[in-house]
Amino acid sequence: MQGLMMDTPLTISSLIRHADRNHGETEIVSRTIDGSLHRSTYREVHSRSRRLANCLIASGVQSGDRIGTLAWNGYRHMELYFAVSGIGAICHTVNPRLFPEQIVYIINHAEDTQIFFDATFISLVRDIAPRCPGVRHWVLMTDRAGMAGAADLAFSVQCYEEEIGKFSDEFVWPDLDEGSASSLCYTSGTTGNPKGVLYSHRSTVLHTMALAMPDAVNLSERDVMLVVVPMFHANAWGTIYCAAAVGFKLVLPGPHLDPASLYELFESEGVTISPGVPTVWNGLLQFLQQGKRKFTSLKRLFVGGAAFPEASIRAFREHLGVSVIHAWGMTETSPLGTAATLLAKHSRLPMDAQYALLAKQGRVLFGVEMKIVGDDGEELPHDGVAFGNFLVRGPWVARGYFKGDDAAVTKHGWFATGDVATIDADGFMRITDRSKDVIKSGGEWISSISLESIAMAHPGVLEAAVIGMRHPKWDERPLLLIIRKPESAVTRDELLQFFEGKIAKWWMPDDVVFVDSLPHTATGKLLKTKLRDAYAGHVPGANAGSSRNSEPALER
Amino acid sequence: MQGLMMDTPLTISSLIRHADRNHGETEIVSRTIDGSLHRSTYREVHSRSRRLANCLIASGVQSGDRIGTLAWNGYRHMELYFAVSGIGAICHTVNPRLFPEQIVYIINHAEDTQIFFDATFISLVRDIAPRCPGVRHWVLMTDRAGMAGAADLAFSVQCYEEEIGKFSDEFVWPDLDEGSASSLCYTSGTTGNPKGVLYSHRSTVLHTMALAMPDAVNLSERDVMLVVVPMFHANAWGTIYCAAAVGFKLVLPGPHLDPASLYELFESEGVTISPGVPTVWNGLLQFLQQGKRKFTSLKRLFVGGAAFPEASIRAFREHLGVSVIHAWGMTETSPLGTAATLLAKHSRLPMDAQYALLAKQGRVLFGVEMKIVGDDGEELPHDGVAFGNFLVRGPWVARGYFKGDDAAVTKHGWFATGDVATIDADGFMRITDRSKDVIKSGGEWISSISLESIAMAHPGVLEAAVIGMRHPKWDERPLLLIIRKPESAVTRDELLQFFEGKIAKWWMPDDVVFVDSLPHTATGKLLKTKLRDAYAGHVPGANAGSSRNSEPALER
Repeated sequence: MQGLMMDTPLTISSLIRHADRNHGETEIVSRTIDGSLHRSTYREVHSRSRRLANCLIASGVQSGDRIGTLAWNGYRHMELYFAVSGIGAICHTVNPRLFPEQIVYIINHAEDTQIFFDATFISLVRDIAPRCPGVRHWVLMTDRAGMAGAADLAFSVQCYEEEIGKFSDEFVWPDLDEGSASSLCYTSGTTGNPKGVLYSHRSTVLHTMALAMPDAVNLSERDVMLVVVPMFHANAWGTIYCAAAVGFKLVLPGPHLDPASLYELFESEGVTISPGVPTVWNGLLQFLQQGKRKFTSLKRLFVGGAAFPEASIRAFREHLGVSVIHAWGMTETSPLGTAATLLAKHSRLPMDAQYALLAKQGRVLFGVEMKIVGDDGEELPHDGVAFGNFLVRGPWVARGYFKGDDAAVTKHGWFATGDVATIDADGFMRITDRSKDVIKSGGEWISSISLESIAMAHPGVLEAAVIGMRHPKWDERPLLLIIRKPESAVTRDELLQFFEGKIAKWWMPDDVVFVDSLPHTATGKLLKTKLRDAYAGHVPGANAGSSRNSEPALER
Repeated sequence: MQGLMMDTPLTISSLIRHADRNHGETEIVSRTIDGSLHRSTYREVHSRSRRLANCLIASGVQSGDRIGTLAWNGYRHMELYFAVSGIGAICHTVNPRLFPEQIVYIINHAEDTQIFFDATFISLVRDIAPRCPGVRHWVLMTDRAGMAGAADLAFSVQCYEEEIGKFSDEFVWPDLDEGSASSLCYTSGTTGNPKGVLYSHRSTVLHTMALAMPDAVNLSERDVMLVVVPMFHANAWGTIYCAAAVGFKLVLPGPHLDPASLYELFESEGVTISPGVPTVWNGLLQFLQQGKRKFTSLKRLFVGGAAFPEASIRAFREHLGVSVIHAWGMTETSPLGTAATLLAKHSRLPMDAQYALLAKQGRVLFGVEMKIVGDDGEELPHDGVAFGNFLVRGPWVARGYFKGDDAAVTKHGWFATGDVATIDADGFMRITDRSKDVIKSGGEWISSISLESIAMAHPGVLEAAVIGMRHPKWDERPLLLIIRKPESAVTRDELLQFFEGKIAKWWMPDDVVFVDSLPHTATGKLLKTKLRDAYAGHVPGANAGSSRNSEPALER
């Protein structure tokens, strides 16, 4: 027997409609590429999203079409979020920090028919456009004056403001099936090509509600959020959607993510909470400490993308009065899966014990289920000691990849995160390892296997391994371990040159170490735990040009 | 194109499974009928719910069957919530405060096959059971020792503890379609028979998440909630489900709702928040003020069911340090639709202005849409002045009634609440009138039209009208206005006697006033606004036995 409640679908248009009706005058403050501040409101973003919706439909966009963005955090990007998904098309946020070859792959794989891009990326677009034949319109997110920078492009570029200026804001968002696709983010995985996570309206709205709940990020209308995490990273962790649902003032920093610019904006706009990756916060911490500066409004940081060290959590709390909400998620989990918020009983613990808990990745949100399993698939206890492969499931977890297969999901319907974790009796999860050995550098992922594959293509290399070595600023940087072929005398510099043009600059290994052997598992896989034990503390340059015998032999 | 996220259904079993896994040791404290305290945990409630699930299935319960309860707030009632809905049956919470005739109607209309009842209701069950032939099992919610009280019943009664004791807790909740019916509550409307609102798993889970959000009731694991609102009133406003999702400690007071008992429990269990109707809170306020008592842990009241006067909100805040969250909802809206939480800018207002806002019914929750329309159906402005019929829609709003039709929903898909309201520019809604003129007495509804219908059946009555007159304790009490037939000399006492046995005792009008005429609208409907102007301040007994000419004439 079916219930007799309304069949109201959960749709992204309901978020911006709610914002317009219930907190239409609340501000959206954007720092533009030239550094000036632009002030908008939810009502205005809604109005302009409806103009854009009319514009997209007039340009031939159909339900299910993919519309790409190469853009910073700003009001036009926000308008694209709501307009593209709102008409039933798919908002595909492309990460402009990727290597152009990857961007071309992603745009072509997604079959994007239009790309909206910020002026920062004109030269990138000049490079990739000839290789993206499916893109019918390139739209520069600027006004007429801003079009000068694109004057020398060999192909036609449209002007965002001119295009939407042709249309009225008379538009009624269509009723959509809530299971229909709303947005697409590619994750640069550790093996093979990037894979697309295809979110639905339903998954997005449910994630939005879960994100705001008090034991998750606890977001109310009384907050002011500066969104540091890019809108091309898992939809800025869902914060843009959540802003519309909750109605807090939103501050979007554009490309200006240096500590001084962020600090200025935190202070001038009365920011109370900000989501971002550890690298940014550690840089900001250093900036504040050096200048003996304080925050006057900031109360909380929402930190994910990589582990945030306990020392940083403590420093923010004790020196700056800022609490840290440590969270875990992946592109495949929308992204929020867990958040470290203390339980009632923890308020009685000594501060050291509280910091240790806050440094864990935290407790699972209602809606998501998690478990850890051994290699045999058997569930392991939640005792804070046993560690195993970390699996999750729930309505905002991916069951497959765009155009791909369901390989990411176990036969029992769980998503294998690729992380290894412990879970304690109170449900606090801690990531202890990454089963796929990705290197997290400044919150971005670097695929160790991709780097190994390139190195292995060099004629002088017998075997290659890449691990993350600790780095004070970027958390981790890649270190390349090489066994030369017997006849080879390839050098560090020759190897690093071999990577040039094949990877994004920031993927470049910081150093090369030559070894006689590499440790393997019984099934022949590299045993990276042993390599990390030996080399995670390696100091770049210390062994540059070392002979093949200068490193301790590692047992096979 | 469909998204590629997991198709995880939103089900009630996911709530209790989440509670068990993530805060299994948190307490559920219940005051039993004899006044003693019973301590359980989410894990134990989950375990016993699974035993009960096995028991229900063994007794022949099928998917979609209705299982009734006549019970106070306690752990066994909570187990029924999760077990009955969890197996795909429908948990039908019957309001034991209704007149037996209505209870019989409701049980038969719902076609309940089993009724679980507390010992308080043995004599009620003795009365109604012979008239409920469809009920195959009557189950007394007690252990073997407690069965003595039911020994003299003429029909077989099962013992809750003995029945579930026969079964193991090995049970896996079935996967259910989230649109399937989960629970059923009848609303005693103003016209005709009570109507059943049939909630779904989806509506329940979405309402649960919305309830917890910071700008709604803001519920975290750090709360301790004493649930005063009965579990037979719109599922205790969703708080039981929310408890499982959020993991706060839950305190269930059983039948002991007098101020002294509540106060003792607030203090002994460290309660921080409590939901209930104004009558209870006004009684508690008086009790505390008379005894010069203070709360040591209570921080917030969550008040709905009827308007809570600004003076009470102020008294709780200023004398007791307790904030009031004033909310609006109906059985048909699951029930939460709006909650009065202040916006950031309101913190700068003088306290008087803040109290005035807090006395409104509040801002709409994300997920629900609201509007006010004139009698022509045209939408009215949100200016805080214009008032009109208050309409809502959303995924936890009813689209129809059990076995009934969709008459409650407009052709455009909105639910007509029957209330008249204003909405201001910030989205604060205020109920200004009830289009159907129900009388709210102690948070319960009394149908004026039902009372009028009975009065009209008296041979000496020409016309009758019932309005609410103000009452210091119950907010409102019914007042009966009568035009006698020319030849009649029927008295006040004769009329009131005529109601005996036809209505619940508390529906009995407090007084009768004889008049020569009653005001009507152009279409012939009673113009109750005029009647209220004249009689809302009536003092019962003042005009008892008055002649037909003792009242001021009211213009037709």
